[in-house]
Order: sequence, then C-alpha cells, then structure tokens
Amino acid sequence: MSSEQAVADIGLIGLAVMGQNLILNMNDKGFTVCAYNRTTSKVDDFLNDEAKGTKIVGAHSVEEFVAKLKRPRKMIILVKAGSAVDAFIDQLTPHLEKGDIIIDGGNSHYPDSIRRTKALEAKGLLFVGAGVSGGEEGARHGPSIMPGGSDEAWPHLKEIFQKTAAQSDGEACCEWVGQTGSGHYVKMVHNGIEYGDMQLICEAYDILKRGLGLKEAEIADIFEKWNTGVLDSFLIEITRDILRFNDDDGVPLVTKVLDAAGQKGTGKWTAIDALDLGQPVTLIGEAVFARCLSSLKEERVRASKVLGGPKIEPFQGDKQQFIDDLEQALYASKIISYSQGFILMNSAAKANDWKLNNAGIALMWRGGCIIRSVFLKDITNAYRKNPELENLLFDDFFNKAIHKAQDGWRRVVAKAILLGIPTPAFSTALAFYDGYRTAQLPASLLQAQRDLFGAHTFEIAPGFGTKERPEGQPVHVNWTGRGGRVASSTYQA
Amino acid sequence: MSSEQAVADIGLIGLAVMGQNLILNMNDKGFTVCAYNRTTSKVDDFLNDEAKGTKIVGAHSVEEFVAKLKRPRKMIILVKAGSAVDAFIDQLTPHLEKGDIIIDGGNSHYPDSIRRTKALEAKGLLFVGAGVSGGEEGARHGPSIMPGGSDEAWPHLKEIFQKTAAQSDGEACCEWVGQTGSGHYVKMVHNGIEYGDMQLICEAYDILKRGLGLKEAEIADIFEKWNTGVLDSFLIEITRDILRFNDDDGVPLVTKVLDAAGQKGTGKWTAIDALDLGQPVTLIGEAVFARCLSSLKEERVRASKVLGGPKIEPFQGDKQQFIDDLEQALYASKIISYSQGFILMNSAAKANDWKLNNAGIALMWRGGCIIRSVFLKDITNAYRKNPELENLLFDDFFNKAIHKAQDGWRRVVAKAILLGIPTPAFSTALAFYDGYRTAQLPASLLQAQRDLFGAHTFEIAPGFGTKERPEGQPVHVNWTGRGGRVASSTYQA
Repeated sequence: MSSEQAVADIGLIGLAVMGQNLILNMNDKGFTVCAYNRTTSKVDDFLNDEAKGTKIVGAHSVEEFVAKLKRPRKMIILVKAGSAVDAFIDQLTPHLEKGDIIIDGGNSHYPDSIRRTKALEAKGLLFVGAGVSGGEEGARHGPSIMPGGSDEAWPHLKEIFQKTAAQSDGEACCEWVGQTGSGHYVKMVHNGIEYGDMQLICEAYDILKRGLGLKEAEIADIFEKWNTGVLDSFLIEITRDILRFNDDDGVPLVTKVLDAAGQKGTGKWTAIDALDLGQPVTLIGEAVFARCLSSLKEERVRASKVLGGPKIEPFQGDKQQFIDDLEQALYASKIISYSQGFILMNSAAKANDWKLNNAGIALMWRGGCIIRSVFLKDITNAYRKNPELENLLFDDFFNKAIHKAQDGWRRVVAKAILLGIPTPAFSTALAFYDGYRTAQLPASLLQAQRDLFGAHTFEIAPGFGTKERPEGQPVHVNWTGRGGRVASSTYQA
Repeated sequence: MSSEQAVADIGLIGLAVMGQNLILNMNDKGFTVCAYNRTTSKVDDFLNDEAKGTKIVGAHSVEEFVAKLKRPRKMIILVKAGSAVDAFIDQLTPHLEKGDIIIDGGNSHYPDSIRRTKALEAKGLLFVGAGVSGGEEGARHGPSIMPGGSDEAWPHLKEIFQKTAAQSDGEACCEWVGQTGSGHYVKMVHNGIEYGDMQLICEAYDILKRGLGLKEAEIADIFEKWNTGVLDSFLIEITRDILRFNDDDGVPLVTKVLDAAGQKGTGKWTAIDALDLGQPVTLIGEAVFARCLSSLKEERVRASKVLGGPKIEPFQGDKQQFIDDLEQALYASKIISYSQGFILMNSAAKANDWKLNNAGIALMWRGGCIIRSVFLKDITNAYRKNPELENLLFDDFFNKAIHKAQDGWRRVVAKAILLGIPTPAFSTALAFYDGYRTAQLPASLLQAQRDLFGAHTFEIAPGFGTKERPEGQPVHVNWTGRGGRVASSTYQA
C-alpha cells in the first residue's frame, strides 16, 4: 500500500444514523474521515448523498479502509454492541500495526471493553471504549464522548474527540476517563442516571396532572419555568415540548402514547452492577423497576378495577407553594441520584483499579448528552474544589441545596402517598437521604436476627466493647437459650 | 461390593452443623443414614459423639460411602456452594449406577443446578437441587425443604424428605417444586423475601424507637402482641426475644450491636434476577440496598454531623392508633413483597420452562424456614382456590386485607417521611401498590422522551389509533420539528 493512500485522520465503521452524523460532525471540525460499512452500497449512498461535497472518503473493504488511514491508525467501530464488535476487531487486526488504535463507540457492556483492551494490548495494539451520548442530534452537532482504555491512545485522539464533542462554557464535553472499560462504565452510569431523571420527571408530571388536576399545557408552562432555574436541562426542556405537542384534534399527543416503557438494558446493567458492588444506588434501581411495572399494562388495567385507593379531591391550599415544593423535590432527588451514581463509579474504580477524574466526568455530561444540565456544572465545581470529595452531599453548595429543598421534598412525598400517586423515585431518594444521615440504623436488629437464626455473628458497636465481647471481632450470642453452637458455615442468608 | 454392605437409606456428605443436624433428624424419623466428610476424622468424631447410640453409619472414603447406600442411591451433598459441589459430584459419579440420585442441599445458585441436572441426566443419573431453610434448629427438628430437578427422583425421595421436613397443620413443608434449577430458585426467592421481611421489621422498630420514643422492652411487648395476630411469624417472635435480651448491665444487647448488615448473596441474586427478567421486585431490591447503606457505617456517622433533618418532637395524637397503623403497614408491605416474589417465580418458570406449584411453594414456606408464618397459610389457600391466580392482590382474602390496611399504611409512611425516619421498604411497597393499581401511568411521557431524543418509537394507547398512527405498531413523531429520521439502531437508552 502506498502512503499517498493514507489520507484520513480517522475512520469510522458503521453507517447507521449515528455513524453518519458523527462522520459529518468530524468533517465539519476539519478532519478527514474514511467511512466504511459492511453493506458497501451504504458507503456509496452516503458519499453521494449526505457526504457530497465534503472531504469524507469511503472504503469498500477492510483492507482499503485500513490503507486509507494515517498512522497511528484511528478507527471508530459504531455497530450494535456484542459479537459484531468482535467480528470487526477480528477483521481489522491482521491489517494493523503496533500502536494503531481501535475505538468502540457503541454501547458495549464494560466487561467486554476490559476484555478487548487486554486482548488488543497483548497484540501491541491500543483499544478505547468510548461511550457516546446525545442521540442523533448530539452525534451531528456535538455529543458527549466518554473515552477510556489504553492510556497511550489518548494523546492521539484528544484533538479530534474534543473538537468533535459538545462544548460547554468553553470546555469540551470529552475528557479521558480512565483505563480499560472505564469509558463504557461511565457511559453506563450516565444511562442509569438518565433512567432516574426521566422517572423523576414522570412522577412530577403525574403529581401535577392527577394531584393538582392540571392540563398538559399548564404543566408545560411549569416545566418551562423550571427550565430557567436549578432544573435547567435538556430533559426538562423536551418535556415542555412534548407536553405542548398536540395531535391534529388538539389533544396533547402524550396522552395517547401507550404507557408501557421500553428499555434496552443499560439502566438494568447499572442497577445490577450496583448490587454486585454492594452500593446503594436505589434511585436507578427504582427507575428500572418502574419501567418494568409500566410494561405490565394489561395487568395494571385489570388491577385498577379491583384495587382501590384514596379519592383525589380538588387540591386545597397554596397551589404555587406546592408546585415550588415539587421543583425542590425533583432537584433534591436529582442530587441524591447523582450522588449515588458517583458512589457507584468510585466503587467500580476501586474494584477495577481505574483512576477516575470525577470533575471530568461531570464536565463530559455537562453538554451534548441526554442528561446535560446546568446542575452538572455545579458538580464539576464541587469535584474541582475537592477531587477527593467523599459524597456530593458533603460539598457546601449541595449541602445548602439539599437543606433548602428538604422541607418541600418531604411535603410532596407525604402528599403523594396520601393521594395514592406512586412516587417510587422521589420516595427512595428521600429514604436514602434519611438513611445516609442516620448514624445509628436499625440494622443492629437485623444483625441480631441473623445471629439468632443462622449463627452469622455480629460486631459490637464502637464504645460498647467488653472483655467478653470485644469490638472488631465476630461475636455470637445464644439469644434464646436454645441451640447456639458456633457459626454456621453452610447456611447463608 | 456385597449387597449386605448397602444398609443406608440415604447418605450425606458434609458434616458441618447443618449436615450433622440433618442426619440426626433423618435418623430420628427412622431412616438409616450414612455420613461422610472429606476430613474423615470428623466422621469418627460425629459417630462417637452426637451420633452415638443411633443407627447412623459412617464412611471413610467415597467408595465406602457409595457402597453403603441402598439402590437407587440417594446422596445429599451439603457443602459450600460452588466448586466444592462439582468436586464431590465428580468424585461420586464414577461409582454410581443408572438412576442413582445426587442431591445438592446447599445454597447453590440456580443456574448451577440447571447445569448439573442436565449434565447428570446425560449420564443416566438423577440430580436434585434442594433448597433447605431453617438454620441449625430447622435442620435438627424439621426444616423447609424445596427440592427440584429430575422429576423421576421425587418418588424415591418423597417419604424421607417429607418426614424429615417441618410439619404444619398436618402437612409436610416439602413438596416437589419443579424441574432443573427450580428448587434452588424457590429457595433463592425465599431468601430474598426473608431480606424483605427483616428490613420491614427493622423499619417498624426504628419508627417505634425514634418516632414514638419507646424503649426496647416496650417495643418487645408490641411485637409480642403482633405475634398473636396477622403478623404471627418466626421473625416477629425472635424480634421480641432479641429486644428482651439484656446485657449484664441491664442494657438491651441489640443497642450495642453494630448496625452494619452483612449479606451472603442470595438476596442480591434475587434482585439481579428480577432485573434480568424485567419484573418489579422492588421490596427485595430496597432491602438489599438498605443492607448496603447500613454497611457504610463510618460514612453515615460523618454524614450525620453535616446533614440535618426534622427534629423529632414527642409524639402527638393517639399512640395506640399509630401502633395499629404500623401493624397494618407491615402487613400490607408483606403482602406486596410476597406478591412480587410470586410474580418473579412465575416469570422465571416461564423463562426456564418449569411447572411450578404455587400452593406447594407457600406450603413449604409455612413451617420450618426463616419466613414461616401464619400468613403463608393464607397464601396456600389463595393458590389452592385458584392455581392460576395472576397476583395475590386479586384474591378475595388479600384484596380485603390490603384495603383494610391501606389507610394506616399511608399514614405511617407519610408520618415517617415527615419525621425523617427512613422507610425504604414500606415506601416502595406502597409505591408498587399505587403503581400496580394505576391503569394510566406517566410512562407515556417517558416513551415520548425516548422517541424524541433517540427515535426509539412508541405505541399508541388502546382506543387512540388512527390511520396515520395505528395501534400495535411502532410510531415515531418529529416532536420538535428538528432532526427526526427513522428509528436509530445503535443508540440505546
């Protein structure tokens, strides 16, 4: 192959909408991109249509694709997560040279990215798992990009990625996340948080609609106002737009949408990982379960006929105050959800030996992606002030915010419970807050129960140790005077 | 080997406390048991000590163990779940004959039991994964046994297992669960429900202690009373005993127990399986997360110093009414938790092609095990009345019960929220109830959001279909007037 062929700064495999848009975006930023697709007619269609008049070049085989890339070669694979990614990696590697960089820009599960990094590094190649968020529009005009993997790859990618990514307050929404699967991990948690944010908005909508009896147009006005305050964000903005979108008959289209939520798995992955790491990421968990419950549509319809609840009377009291309380409830719940997300990422970092840049993560989510918001700037600031911050709630800004919010938050959740309107995400956020700030939880009783029936042993709380029952040691007590041999090794609970 | 050697009705491998107790129990019921242990000195110790004067025989090698069993041989392995089980299976199989039965009585993860059933059946052997609950005492005097696996094994085991199991109202707490891994699956869900029950009791204890300012002795009296009503159960009974157990200095020992809950994984497995199957098993999820949060003891202590909440004033109002409300809240939450457990098991049965006997499952849990309760008799009755019952809440008895309970339940959760006492399990149960009985959830907005930013499409709700947007078809709308090509195939959220 002659080096004159090597004209492209970067290549991209996979010409679905996201891929095409990302190529056009990189082209706009001044980079020469080589496009390839398994069904090669798509390459021609793209070159003759969307890419016409650009510097974009195409390839009709893997060999041609590789030959057209400047070294070290940078190749983004943007195909369905799973075996298709491995298949392209296998096709590419025989044609690559030491130091070439394969980037997986799809929604791969992070253990796959850990595996791929190790396998390619063993061959002298570099691998980057890059989470990309922002949907079609983000890809076209500036997504959030979360790259992690082989550290040596970053200097070669930095300029392209940071120019291609969304910009927020003069900073690119793309930073190096960390090693092996950390990029896809952070993208996974992003998606989990997205599940949470969406569920919180749905609960607010339900309270406004059923609790206050407001119409979609009125609720849209409230979201519009919220979008100028602490909740200012993409998801609040599109909620406003959706609520204002009327069908041809003048009825808000959202009221005709089937209330059975779909999911593609990244929220579920986040919740499962939280359980595996033993981290209390309750809000994402509830958001995933809420989607599961919503999907039981026919069963719910049957249940609604035989399961009663409180009658919702016309709202008494100060409506505006209640709406302001609701704004605070949503804000406080978001603070909890993001706190939990960072708890999870930092636990994963420990488990996987990643060095994570918390401020950088918040910055990457600040723009371009689905959860982009003003709020994320405050998170960036908090971690810049103190990179070792144990929890967002310990930061002055968020500490003040949650204290300001909590009275209204409590009023809203208590009211929803008395009205019979389900608020699983608001409620679990509040339960987390109250549990987290409780020095002495009733888990002492739980430990005693486990010791009583399963001889699981327990520890003595600080300050209560005795010679017979010292602190920091497993203690077993014969609580009932019956049974009571030493700790069981087979029974588990 | 001469057939005179084959004296034992059943054999058991693994002489930890559970194994010894189960052997002594089977011996009491008239069966001759052969005991074996990898460290063979334990066999001698057992025969010379606990088993002295019984019909129990011992073996000092796998060959001898197998030789001493009547055919078809029935061998219970009761060792640590995982590779130790496979190791013993591998040691046993060369010495076995067609139709011999290996029973894994440990807490194996059900996919392992599915795998083992298939592998052993392929060799002409039979495998049973039997969940055993009840701790040391249950094993000694009558556990709950949940066997599933090779259907042909059951007639050979039925008498031994049903006589060895706990008896409740004249019925054995052991029935054939179903195929392959179903026995361990049901045991796993049992443990998950146990996590939930324990968490609910802890929340009630916390409310009584901090909300009402009661002392452990007073709370014990309340649990004693509850134990004569709808909550009559082992866990309520032992809670009473624990709360009355004073240290030498007269202080309730439970107040000196470190409030950091341990876990061994079965609750986590249940929550993960619920997520994987897309079933809203929220209460077990919250119970597992509550244990995770409790284990962050030092972080909670630090948080308690900077995160404020409502001041808990001396309780105003009718204390007894509130305590009665709390009893109803606990009862209603339990109904939800068991409903969710059965939702999960029935979903797993579909996924794994098991035929489950719901009434039998409730019966097995009725006695012997940790979650044994009077309540489970009502569940048995509900499924006996209607084996196809979609959800416990559709049964007359539970439908009445939840309606009777719900006002108090709401008052308790709302009050706890206003007091700042965390009730994640009570709250999520109520959120589930309110979500389940809601025909039209705000997930319609969520689906619209997903379509807007990711072109995920949605469906039109029943009754709202038009020619342009028919029901039962994926619909995509250009919500904002921007972007809006057809469905994305790579972006997932």
